Amino acid sequence: MTLPARLSGVIPPVCTPLTPAGEVDTVSLARLVDQLAGAGVDGLFVLGSTSEAAFLTDRQRVAVVDTVVGQLNGALPVLAGAIDMTTPRVVEHARAALAAGADAVVATAPFYTRVARPEIERHYRLLADRVEAPVFAYDLPVATGVKLPAALVLALAADGVLAGLKDSSPELGELRAVLAGVQDGVTGPDFAVLTGSELVVDAALLMGAHGVVPGLGNVDPHGYVRLVAACAERDWARARVEQDRLARLFALVEAGDPGRMGRGSAAIGGFKTALYLRGWIDHPTTAEPQVPLNEAETERVAKHLAGAGLL
Amino acid sequence: MTLPARLSGVIPPVCTPLTPAGEVDTVSLARLVDQLAGAGVDGLFVLGSTSEAAFLTDRQRVAVVDTVVGQLNGALPVLAGAIDMTTPRVVEHARAALAAGADAVVATAPFYTRVARPEIERHYRLLADRVEAPVFAYDLPVATGVKLPAALVLALAADGVLAGLKDSSPELGELRAVLAGVQDGVTGPDFAVLTGSELVVDAALLMGAHGVVPGLGNVDPHGYVRLVAACAERDWARARVEQDRLARLFALVEAGDPGRMGRGSAAIGGFKTALYLRGWIDHPTTAEPQVPLNEAETERVAKHLAGAGLL
Amino acid sequence: MTLPARLSGVIPPVCTPLTPAGEVDTVSLARLVDQLAGAGVDGLFVLGSTSEAAFLTDRQRVAVVDTVVGQLNGALPVLAGAIDMTTPRVVEHARAALAAGADAVVATAPFYTRVARPEIERHYRLLADRVEAPVFAYDLPVATGVKLPAALVLALAADGVLAGLKDSSPELGELRAVLAGVQDGVTGPDFAVLTGSELVVDAALLMGAHGVVPGLGNVDPHGYVRLVAACAERDWARARVEQDRLARLFALVEAGDPGRMGRGSAAIGGFKTALYLRGWIDHPTTAEPQVPLNEAETERVAKHLAGAGLL
Amino acid sequence: MTLPARLSGVIPPVCTPLTPAGEVDTVSLARLVDQLAGAGVDGLFVLGSTSEAAFLTDRQRVAVVDTVVGQLNGALPVLAGAIDMTTPRVVEHARAALAAGADAVVATAPFYTRVARPEIERHYRLLADRVEAPVFAYDLPVATGVKLPAALVLALAADGVLAGLKDSSPELGELRAVLAGVQDGVTGPDFAVLTGSELVVDAALLMGAHGVVPGLGNVDPHGYVRLVAACAERDWARARVEQDRLARLFALVEAGDPGRMGRGSAAIGGFKTALYLRGWIDHPTTAEPQVPLNEAETERVAKHLAGAGLL
Repeated sequence: MTLPARLSGVIPPVCTPLTPAGEVDTVSLARLVDQLAGAGVDGLFVLGSTSEAAFLTDRQRVAVVDTVVGQLNGALPVLAGAIDMTTPRVVEHARAALAAGADAVVATAPFYTRVARPEIERHYRLLADRVEAPVFAYDLPVATGVKLPAALVLALAADGVLAGLKDSSPELGELRAVLAGVQDGVTGPDFAVLTGSELVVDAALLMGAHGVVPGLGNVDPHGYVRLVAACAERDWARARVEQDRLARLFALVEAGDPGRMGRGSAAIGGFKTALYLRGWIDHPTTAEPQVPLNEAETERVAKHLAGAGLL
Repeated sequence: MTLPARLSGVIPPVCTPLTPAGEVDTVSLARLVDQLAGAGVDGLFVLGSTSEAAFLTDRQRVAVVDTVVGQLNGALPVLAGAIDMTTPRVVEHARAALAAGADAVVATAPFYTRVARPEIERHYRLLADRVEAPVFAYDLPVATGVKLPAALVLALAADGVLAGLKDSSPELGELRAVLAGVQDGVTGPDFAVLTGSELVVDAALLMGAHGVVPGLGNVDPHGYVRLVAACAERDWARARVEQDRLARLFALVEAGDPGRMGRGSAAIGGFKTALYLRGWIDHPTTAEPQVPLNEAETERVAKHLAGAGLL
Repeated sequence: MTLPARLSGVIPPVCTPLTPAGEVDTVSLARLVDQLAGAGVDGLFVLGSTSEAAFLTDRQRVAVVDTVVGQLNGALPVLAGAIDMTTPRVVEHARAALAAGADAVVATAPFYTRVARPEIERHYRLLADRVEAPVFAYDLPVATGVKLPAALVLALAADGVLAGLKDSSPELGELRAVLAGVQDGVTGPDFAVLTGSELVVDAALLMGAHGVVPGLGNVDPHGYVRLVAACAERDWARARVEQDRLARLFALVEAGDPGRMGRGSAAIGGFKTALYLRGWIDHPTTAEPQVPLNEAETERVAKHLAGAGLL
Repeated sequence: MTLPARLSGVIPPVCTPLTPAGEVDTVSLARLVDQLAGAGVDGLFVLGSTSEAAFLTDRQRVAVVDTVVGQLNGALPVLAGAIDMTTPRVVEHARAALAAGADAVVATAPFYTRVARPEIERHYRLLADRVEAPVFAYDLPVATGVKLPAALVLALAADGVLAGLKDSSPELGELRAVLAGVQDGVTGPDFAVLTGSELVVDAALLMGAHGVVPGLGNVDPHGYVRLVAACAERDWARARVEQDRLARLFALVEAGDPGRMGRGSAAIGGFKTALYLRGWIDHPTTAEPQVPLNEAETERVAKHLAGAGLL
């Protein structure tokens, strides 16, 4: 499917189900795609952080795009993360994902290496040059160690380098500055601003953001569809109730004991365990070297699901 | 070549010369290998941070190992970085490097993803299980965002998971704790501790470290060979004079204007420009999206080389 | 004046006008208090970060409280920051401010020293024990290096240790978690949640926050009063227009050239220059060692004011 | 006592013994001063981080200087920390310490507020102007969040602003750059470079540093006196043995359980408990809100002391 003129709505970052042996569980992935599409989401984002792209081999990454694109059969647009350290490597991932049928690519600033604004800017300009598809900037300071400044995003958007922004930074003030630029016509009218902060969707959409890429949307896509619909109708009271409910459910990312694992293991483990408990995927397996949730932690996830009426 | 029982001495992290088009310049790389070997170094470390491994595609990484291993023809041991975000991806890089002839692999803690000690430990244990070669831990907090604690390094060494440590953290106190463990027999007698801090080699060797992996060793390998020889002879006064000279030369990593580029571009650009000015490589080209040094900055590098008697 | 049962609305963190010699300019301060009170704000917060509390001597801090309390003559509640590194020093500042007439104190987590949750919790419990007035927690990770976790704030609120929270962290998701606790009755009904993020007031109030402590409210108190009124009427469209206007005006904190000064100098210099240009204070002087704005930078501030219709 | 032309040797940062009620225990403090002086140290540093200056009220700070200066009666030079956020407050502390008899003041970069190089430079220039005594820069990034660059330290030293540097950063490479400047005559010949890193004293002195300010020197001053003597005699093998022993003893700063307390509580608690167990101070009390060591943790400290032959 081609992208809409401007992407908007709910675009979940699709979890990548794995077999106990660590291979992509394409059967579960196809089922998850069906669940998300059936819930009425507006697109899918594969190979992002929630998808464990950082853990998937190149071969597995292609298998993911293949499976999702094949299952959707054009029903929804597919964005694909091209997650790697620098331009040459990101270009290769982007081309592989596009060859497998993705509609657009999503790329962070360079990481591992010590860059400043000039290198970040050059990175996106080179990417846009070398890749035959819309490029979205992925602002994820918790992973990359750098924040994309609003002024840089706007400059790149103004030059047609970027088609949109997935903002997973906590800085809503900077998001507002980007949105002010969009509103003032600094960017073209189709520049899409998507928040990756699943806990403040009502706030981001109130400010003018066009959509959301919620990790928790794997677990409760219907909730995010309702939330965004309420925002679209400017029914902010209803939106807040839905968002508050989802924020409570989000506590499942802390079911993993911080003495036993890092925050990444707990978050991805929480999502996948919830999907497993809902029967949407066959195994809660997470990629290595993440620590899996144990029985007690799985119980906690179940309790959160039950509290949200999902179990 | 097989590794010596315990690696020691000068093991430069070999720069990866590039053509202006961004491909591996294998002719220059072979010449650089000859220069380093001719200066009397004790091994080579390819595909580390100084080698721009973060910027090289998988194909280029293999080309580097091929070229270096072929040129050395067994004259020196070759360590290869397996630089990627998580275990499954690191394992693939490690296997590719070993297939191309590397003698050992060097791996950082996971990055991009939010890990704590349990995931880092699991990462190294899985690596050692899956890779048929000695594994060195690469402690590079500036790139990964996490410091490998001395206690973890020692625990992994005690279990035979790690063959050595390349310590590129600034924390010499932690390095001392690792060395105390080595001295106390916590590790086996062959555990190799190498410092990656090219400015404090005398200090690290005084503390008991076995060798150094100096980025600046590309530019002045003879200096580092003399420095390590002086340390081996316990001639600390002579060592200090040599180290002080090298520390002054190291200022070439700041020749790039911080208003024009980040610290990575300046450092790699400084090394490669120096190699180019010495006639050891044919192009000072750095990988994208790094910002190249301009004429004035190149002049500054030349001045540093002249000041050190290298031009 | 005593505090209302629950503080809410607009409570500007009052700038501290200085004479060119660096003394508190009490005449300007009294005039600024009149302007703010006349604009209809709901309380004043003195000796916070925007007030340059970190730069004021103990004697000057007391002069500020004296002046503001005297000028208000009970018309509005006065919160006073007790900004220092640890409990014993904070207690002394708190007592001095209360003796001078403040109604409540606002304190950050300990800083400079390396604390974890146990010390932060103990800090607030000891403060509440030793100080005869309501204590507000001031969450300012950019200054202290630590984020107050929502769970800790709620635990302290539940025990009556805290009367409220001034949240100047960027993490609206954590703010939402605090507000969920308030809504669920974890805290008493009077626990006040105030955002210090002047760019996302509509979002924070939509989520249920009770008020705002906006640094920019010194410069445009009428704007913040209108914004909060629109939020109170649930007229989110009007709120957003006002907030977007204020967000644009906020760019005055970047009028100072980053090559000449740090972000603190630029922000405080921007606010004070704006107040000077509006004729509300007699000197734009900032405390040492901050770098003052120069003429060109002052022009930029003037332009921002003009753009917002304030000059 | 006046300072020597250039300070050197062992200058312990003196712990501040407290009574169980939290007041300065001047009897214990005088006894500790006697122990340190008796061990042959070269000066004392009061009101630094190890002294819990961040926790002492102004009155208590003066009591400390009074007691130490009185007890020494001119036998050793006394440096006093002037630990506070910004210039005006630091000046007040500096004057109070000098009035109480200190010979020089030690000040960090500003903290809590967001400064860059211009403000840091201005801070030290203003301090030197306003304070009638030698000023030492205290580089403590773990507390202030900023590293003093070698180039700035040298520029300030060249202008006579700074009399010396206490370097408690982990960056020995930067320390080497400062020492290169000293050796090259950038500073005057009397500029004193002291390391605050108690685990790498041999390394720092090998590089040319003049002395050490070791927190652990409270517990084992004789060890540090022996260590520095060995360095002075260029007996690096003996120095290393002593330093290795002290590094093992240093583990007492981790006797406090990280699940019960932050790193500051553990470090200060470890030092004070060791002093208490040695009978040098009457109470192991640490300042609030630090968490005290419990019985099991105290046992661990005792074990470390015994292991080092101190109990």
